[in-house]
Amino acid sequence: MIISRLHEAVEGRGPVCVGLDPTPELLPLGLLRATGSLGAAFLEFNKKIVDATLDIVACYKVQIAHYEALGVEGLAAYRDTLRYIRARGAIAIGDVKRGDIASTAAMYARAHFEGDFEADFLTLSPYLGFDSISPFLPYLKRGEKGLFVLIRTSNPSASEFQDLSCFSHHRSPITHHEKSRHPLYLHVAEAVARWGEPFIGKCGYSAIGGVVGGTASEPLAQIRKQFPSLFLLVPGYGAQGARGKDVAAAFRDGNGAVVVAARSIIGAHRGKADGDRRFPEYARAAALAMREDIRRWTR
Amino acid sequence: MIISRLHEAVEGRGPVCVGLDPTPELLPLGLLRATGSLGAAFLEFNKKIVDATLDIVACYKVQIAHYEALGVEGLAAYRDTLRYIRARGAIAIGDVKRGDIASTAAMYARAHFEGDFEADFLTLSPYLGFDSISPFLPYLKRGEKGLFVLIRTSNPSASEFQDLSCFSHHRSPITHHEKSRHPLYLHVAEAVARWGEPFIGKCGYSAIGGVVGGTASEPLAQIRKQFPSLFLLVPGYGAQGARGKDVAAAFRDGNGAVVVAARSIIGAHRGKADGDRRFPEYARAAALAMREDIRRWTR
Repeated sequence: MIISRLHEAVEGRGPVCVGLDPTPELLPLGLLRATGSLGAAFLEFNKKIVDATLDIVACYKVQIAHYEALGVEGLAAYRDTLRYIRARGAIAIGDVKRGDIASTAAMYARAHFEGDFEADFLTLSPYLGFDSISPFLPYLKRGEKGLFVLIRTSNPSASEFQDLSCFSHHRSPITHHEKSRHPLYLHVAEAVARWGEPFIGKCGYSAIGGVVGGTASEPLAQIRKQFPSLFLLVPGYGAQGARGKDVAAAFRDGNGAVVVAARSIIGAHRGKADGDRRFPEYARAAALAMREDIRRWTR
Repeated sequence: MIISRLHEAVEGRGPVCVGLDPTPELLPLGLLRATGSLGAAFLEFNKKIVDATLDIVACYKVQIAHYEALGVEGLAAYRDTLRYIRARGAIAIGDVKRGDIASTAAMYARAHFEGDFEADFLTLSPYLGFDSISPFLPYLKRGEKGLFVLIRTSNPSASEFQDLSCFSHHRSPITHHEKSRHPLYLHVAEAVARWGEPFIGKCGYSAIGGVVGGTASEPLAQIRKQFPSLFLLVPGYGAQGARGKDVAAAFRDGNGAVVVAARSIIGAHRGKADGDRRFPEYARAAALAMREDIRRWTR
């Protein structure tokens, strides 16, 4: 099962997830000239980052928006980046945050679990409820794929709806009281954990995990405690402000979560005299430092 | 302003929005053979539907998932479909339902409001709050673009989170009581209406509208009544079950909403002896019948 592979990866190589979210500004100067197009430059950049970090990170998250911004050419680079990661034997998370009605979700499942944009895990948005998730489950049943559903995000306005205090329609599986009141994100976490029950692997975690931002320490600790089988994808490290001690609450015995950093790793070469030439080494050094920072608080 | 153009289109041509969501099964048999690839067949199919309906519908909604399912080739057809609609002087809604943190949302805005995938309106998902919406606003300020934010969707499990009864953090602008309790979708509707206030055009509607499913008559009527400046994009007509009398509540004096139908229009030729040859005529007839069905209840 893919979730057990991810669990092993964290065990062996640590919990860093590299966000391959290039921008024109992040690219080393020579790369665009050498490749001739932004799409080709993104791909070449990503390959070099992957090669330099493969043995010290758990997985890679590829944010499709950065590629969509370049149009069709960019999406070819997205496709080829995912292929490269998977061909190197690493785990690829397609960060697409899709969420739509069932017939449309089936199209997205086909788009991102097979064909051009095949990833090992996908991120999904929960607003439409279970039937926006269920079309992805046949792929999970075969053990090949996994999901991370947004629960509590890392952005400043995450609280606007996610922290609203809501009543259950029915008896809460969290507190076993009727009409109990919880923030929306806990209702979502409870549903995600319930959806994931049939997909719990030997590692003790489900192939349906959750996205919980590292900048929200309290929700992170609460969700980790209440839903022990939920594997967590934790964005917000580095450029967005979270540090090792903030994300430590996501872990159980040093596993059960991966922590994403994009700019602080793939942009680590910026401002260095030899950064354009040695960007893969700077990325590796930043990933190693991040792994140490997290391990300091989780062991 | 684009919202006033949409308002005029509804006034002049009626409130039908054609969903250009082709599938291989919907394609007339000869079209795939004639064009040689699914992507090219999708585009050719869409062009013929647009040509046959241009003078009797308000706009077109293109669901990107149907194109993503074909990979990079499909996304070229998505790009070319949007270009064709806009080149014919019609209004194109890119149904992408994106929702992500600000820096990523800025990438999506670039992807779908300029460049390859430029649409006139986009659908967005609200789960991440205002800073997932704000990067799109510079395009609205110029008057060129508009948004439809998901409020209450048309799928069976929409109620799972959207109908949860939630307290406000602060004094409710809906009831002017503190700690008032409303379904989540009303909190979202209130926020969307608030975000849209600076973008209200001469037609009385804001360039930030909402998506409210036609299968949920009660929320539809409630939202229409409480938020008069909110233009509504109403999916769920036809194949999903809503009829003219169900969606009538979305309208104010015959305007203020467009009603989407996909399969019931673009698949109207299926099962007809001459359907493969005359599919554009069947689509036109279905769109006309739908317009009449809605007008019967809104005039």
